[in-house]
Amino acid sequence: MKLVRYGQVGEERPGLIDADGTLRDLSDQVSDIDGSTLAPATLQRLAALDPSDLPRVPGTPRFGPCVGKVGKLVCIGLNYSDHAAESGLEVPSEPIVFLKATSAITGPNDEVELPLGAEKVDWEVELAFVIGTRAKNVSKEDALSHVAGYMILNDVSERAWQAERQGQWTKGKSHDSFAPMGPWLVTADEIADPHDLNMQLDVDGVRRQTGSTRTLIFGIDHLVSYLSGFMTLEPGDVVTTGTPPGVGLGLRPQVFLKEGQVMRLEIDGLGVQQQKCVRRAAS
Amino acid sequence: MKLVRYGQVGEERPGLIDADGTLRDLSDQVSDIDGSTLAPATLQRLAALDPSDLPRVPGTPRFGPCVGKVGKLVCIGLNYSDHAAESGLEVPSEPIVFLKATSAITGPNDEVELPLGAEKVDWEVELAFVIGTRAKNVSKEDALSHVAGYMILNDVSERAWQAERQGQWTKGKSHDSFAPMGPWLVTADEIADPHDLNMQLDVDGVRRQTGSTRTLIFGIDHLVSYLSGFMTLEPGDVVTTGTPPGVGLGLRPQVFLKEGQVMRLEIDGLGVQQQKCVRRAAS
Repeated sequence: MKLVRYGQVGEERPGLIDADGTLRDLSDQVSDIDGSTLAPATLQRLAALDPSDLPRVPGTPRFGPCVGKVGKLVCIGLNYSDHAAESGLEVPSEPIVFLKATSAITGPNDEVELPLGAEKVDWEVELAFVIGTRAKNVSKEDALSHVAGYMILNDVSERAWQAERQGQWTKGKSHDSFAPMGPWLVTADEIADPHDLNMQLDVDGVRRQTGSTRTLIFGIDHLVSYLSGFMTLEPGDVVTTGTPPGVGLGLRPQVFLKEGQVMRLEIDGLGVQQQKCVRRAAS
Repeated sequence: MKLVRYGQVGEERPGLIDADGTLRDLSDQVSDIDGSTLAPATLQRLAALDPSDLPRVPGTPRFGPCVGKVGKLVCIGLNYSDHAAESGLEVPSEPIVFLKATSAITGPNDEVELPLGAEKVDWEVELAFVIGTRAKNVSKEDALSHVAGYMILNDVSERAWQAERQGQWTKGKSHDSFAPMGPWLVTADEIADPHDLNMQLDVDGVRRQTGSTRTLIFGIDHLVSYLSGFMTLEPGDVVTTGTPPGVGLGLRPQVFLKEGQVMRLEIDGLGVQQQKCVRRAAS
């Protein structure tokens, strides 16, 4: 299934995209697409529905983030060997882990804000996944059973804030709108191999990132198992797995986002997301 | 007011501690002590109640974390100059910011888990505060008006995971039970000067940390203003402000927590919290 949340900010309703690409409402079936509805039993119940019985949603509403009420947004750094190289950093011996503020999460096609004083805002197309069942100290063999589904996440980053403003990456990763997520949450049963997905990102039609999850250093199963020893992964938690080469930081000369530019992200089977960069007023 | 959440894990109810130290139930007044009830208008309404009209809670129930549904848990590193010195690190020129997983939050007197494989679990008594109204790009002058109240937080840390396991502090800061919070949320009107509070931490009756918020490098107003430029602070978000000297990492020889040991934390006006260290089964 392709699960979505649609509607205005803060008022999103659950839905699904049927085989014809039609948006159908799921409000009578689940309260939201979130940790409370991502358990296998609930997803099986939804999968057993006949989509043509569900109300067709008129018009073309906004898509919100495809998972609501995300408890934590865990990020993996330098998880593609060639991205590590372009960043001038060694391939890590174990996953690099950081957290992004959940207040950064926005819809897949919402505007990305270039914050006050920000001069080095950069893009990162990433494969993200959401946890369906609680994972604590799980083995690599059991790990994938805890994953409810996959989606695109743009790990937008302010490079000066990330690296030139006193240690820890948090400041450069957490601004509002720095985590567009979606358009769809694709349930795990529909992704034959999460480690064989092509991905790409364009800025104003110029291809900037081209990659494949084939070159992930640490795969999904490894990440779930590894993370679950450091912190319990709860239903609705999102993990984003790192970005392939081609970020602005790695170009020579470096290139960063400007007002009005449009990012377009695509991953096999997970759809397309697109954001326009804007400068907003102070608050 | 001293606001609390009491009851079993996941079933906490809102309450307050009256002038006689009696626990009174607030369930008929607010749904929870969380971001939805920390706005000034709601706190003023609660303050106008006569506590003796509120139901007295029988027995001595567990205290849960004094704020529920925390959206993000923002931490400041090395914010006391003498703690920076004991850690062998320079005083930062601007705040060091990191995030702790919200799944680490527990009640003030709950057990602290020594995770599987952890050998360097350490203590950190800290003054924390909770946001009452949304703060984005706010000035230092306006900053304190966004703070709903103050509490104790123990920023429990696994030092090897923090510093010896591939960059970023997240891994060492985020384990379940690594953020005991409470016992009370003391509303800001009752704290005459948050920058003049004595604080201390004992392990098994041995005084380990003695400090005062007088020696904070970056004060509460500075932190709210500073952070609000990097990420919007939302009602119910918690910021913990760093720890004074005396952590186990800074002792010679270094000292870390052992199974069965008890930490006791106290800050002027904010009460006492106490946790026993345990090793738990795997999941």
